[in-house]
Amino acid sequence: MFEIVRQEKMSGARVGKLTTPHQVVDTPAFMPVATKATIKTLTPNEIREMGTQAIISNAFHLYLSPGYELIQEAGGLHTFMDWDGAIFTDSGGFQILRKEFRFKLNNKGISYVNSRDAKRYMYTPELCMEIQGALGSDVAMVLDDCPPWGSTRDEVMESVCRTVNWGQRSLDARCNKNQLVFAILQGGTYPEMREACASRLVDMDFDGYGIGGLSIGEPKDVMHETIRLNLTQIPPEKPRYLMGVGSPVELLESISLGVDIFDSAFPTRNARHQTVMTRYGQMDLRRSSLVRDFRPIDEKCGCYTCRHFSRAYLYHLFKESELLAMRLASIHNVHFLQELMREARNAISEERYSEFREQFKREYSSPANTA
Amino acid sequence: MFEIVRQEKMSGARVGKLTTPHQVVDTPAFMPVATKATIKTLTPNEIREMGTQAIISNAFHLYLSPGYELIQEAGGLHTFMDWDGAIFTDSGGFQILRKEFRFKLNNKGISYVNSRDAKRYMYTPELCMEIQGALGSDVAMVLDDCPPWGSTRDEVMESVCRTVNWGQRSLDARCNKNQLVFAILQGGTYPEMREACASRLVDMDFDGYGIGGLSIGEPKDVMHETIRLNLTQIPPEKPRYLMGVGSPVELLESISLGVDIFDSAFPTRNARHQTVMTRYGQMDLRRSSLVRDFRPIDEKCGCYTCRHFSRAYLYHLFKESELLAMRLASIHNVHFLQELMREARNAISEERYSEFREQFKREYSSPANTA
Repeated sequence: MFEIVRQEKMSGARVGKLTTPHQVVDTPAFMPVATKATIKTLTPNEIREMGTQAIISNAFHLYLSPGYELIQEAGGLHTFMDWDGAIFTDSGGFQILRKEFRFKLNNKGISYVNSRDAKRYMYTPELCMEIQGALGSDVAMVLDDCPPWGSTRDEVMESVCRTVNWGQRSLDARCNKNQLVFAILQGGTYPEMREACASRLVDMDFDGYGIGGLSIGEPKDVMHETIRLNLTQIPPEKPRYLMGVGSPVELLESISLGVDIFDSAFPTRNARHQTVMTRYGQMDLRRSSLVRDFRPIDEKCGCYTCRHFSRAYLYHLFKESELLAMRLASIHNVHFLQELMREARNAISEERYSEFREQFKREYSSPANTA
Repeated sequence: MFEIVRQEKMSGARVGKLTTPHQVVDTPAFMPVATKATIKTLTPNEIREMGTQAIISNAFHLYLSPGYELIQEAGGLHTFMDWDGAIFTDSGGFQILRKEFRFKLNNKGISYVNSRDAKRYMYTPELCMEIQGALGSDVAMVLDDCPPWGSTRDEVMESVCRTVNWGQRSLDARCNKNQLVFAILQGGTYPEMREACASRLVDMDFDGYGIGGLSIGEPKDVMHETIRLNLTQIPPEKPRYLMGVGSPVELLESISLGVDIFDSAFPTRNARHQTVMTRYGQMDLRRSSLVRDFRPIDEKCGCYTCRHFSRAYLYHLFKESELLAMRLASIHNVHFLQELMREARNAISEERYSEFREQFKREYSSPANTA
């Protein structure tokens, strides 16, 4: 199911192949986010053209609307949204734990209020597996309890117990044999809690492991330490998925540590807010110096946007609030990260990953180079 | 420059070829609207894939922003927006005559207030030709004075005098020899004013003629009578362009009368407001009966949207206010009109246009057939 094709000697970085029902995914892989069964502004053929092999959707959001029975009736999530690559579905644990849902946690699951009818409902590990089974995603993430950054040790301990308990219940409730099932490691930033959560979930032998509860406000070094710790605990033969991380430098750092899979709304959300990535750092497409800049966003980039349009044109579209602006910027940003993953895989295969990473970081953070 | 390939014996309908610097345009032709150098939500390759040969942009809007010198510096409008087909540019006469611009008309031109600096500027026939020459559009429309529906005979007479005078000044100011120049016929719905305006402008021997000032509130039969009248005055060898008309039945009726070219924001604007065209009339994509309707918008349609997505998916996207919804509906609607034009050209060539038109109208307006 997961094969390590190449393990760099100098770092933890590795190239792998994750075989899912719909697609063999080359790792390290970045997944754009299709929370509501669409990657905002883009069509599946565009996503594919950028070299995307896997995307991630959200079980809880699709449960709320349009409903998983409807998607099952449509022939499953792949057919519904016309994507023939791999689909991961996030459990929605992270999304449901928000003020707007007036959630209450107990051992049974998460109780929340649906704004449509203002009634209270339960979201349980079993329901979450039923939804994902019906959606027919390639990889289901089990329901977890992600404590907010700044939780006390006791609060985190409670969340770890719950996450572990829900992990076992999810395995017991597995209903789609074709689907891979990944657990999500929690434990805040308390090393002993991280260890406790990981060791218990690893014992249950999931198909892969998500590292959750990070990039939610904690300092960068604490995040890196926590990733590093978790990676020592996940068996090397299992795919490792760092959830919610998508800035290019973070991707490359985490790959060094041995992470295989990523997802983030970062490239598409930034694009809709007129910010694109280039080799030389981020670029604000409303920067006044771009008004008459007829170069593409990135002269070395092969994306549709860079092959056809200038910074001046994008500046004009954003200024006029034209929707095409968001779309062209999204194409560029997702392509940028997919290209970065391709280059990372090549660099790992050729045993020059650290050099590649350091050069990228140097260029990306050098303001003098900013075009 | 314009060749009539086929003239139906039974009606005024004709198939032609309009040779422009960038593209030979098969007529009858429908042009989607790219007012601000973008067809809202769509890329040029999508527009092309639908069979679009010509689009229309707006000289006045591009003059206001980003400016015609900038677009000239970019290499012209074709390069700026990456469209290699034909581009018509509307003069903007119709657009400037709006309350927001606090316009004042005089014989010199149109004075308006630019909201950016709250200052008053003049827009003249000469400036309008200079802008369009610099943009490098294939067809320039001369500045006209379009009186609002309900104007008195005296008001319309004044506007006709101005339009005729501006027509001559535009010809004198012609600065781009590659560009075709079309006049715009005005005269409200007063037959003698229409005739006066047309005969004077026809005497000036423009490359083609726009029929302007219609579809702005007047009754349908008055509009048809006015078109019919104007068409008797434009020499048959000249291309005839009915401005701002885009509903399918109106297109087919006008083709019968001998119109060659159309433009309208109708298909794209409706699409953004969740309304699509089908053989059996318009469909509101938020209609509750579509929630579980897994058929495409139109089972016989070959557009990207219909080949890949269901009504249920589009319903879901519109419900969630996903931008992809507007885009997929726009693709369908523009494709629908381009397909209608292809079928019209075939029907004319095969001397069965009236039959084709009547059958379309029957199906399109039959509520019992609505799927």
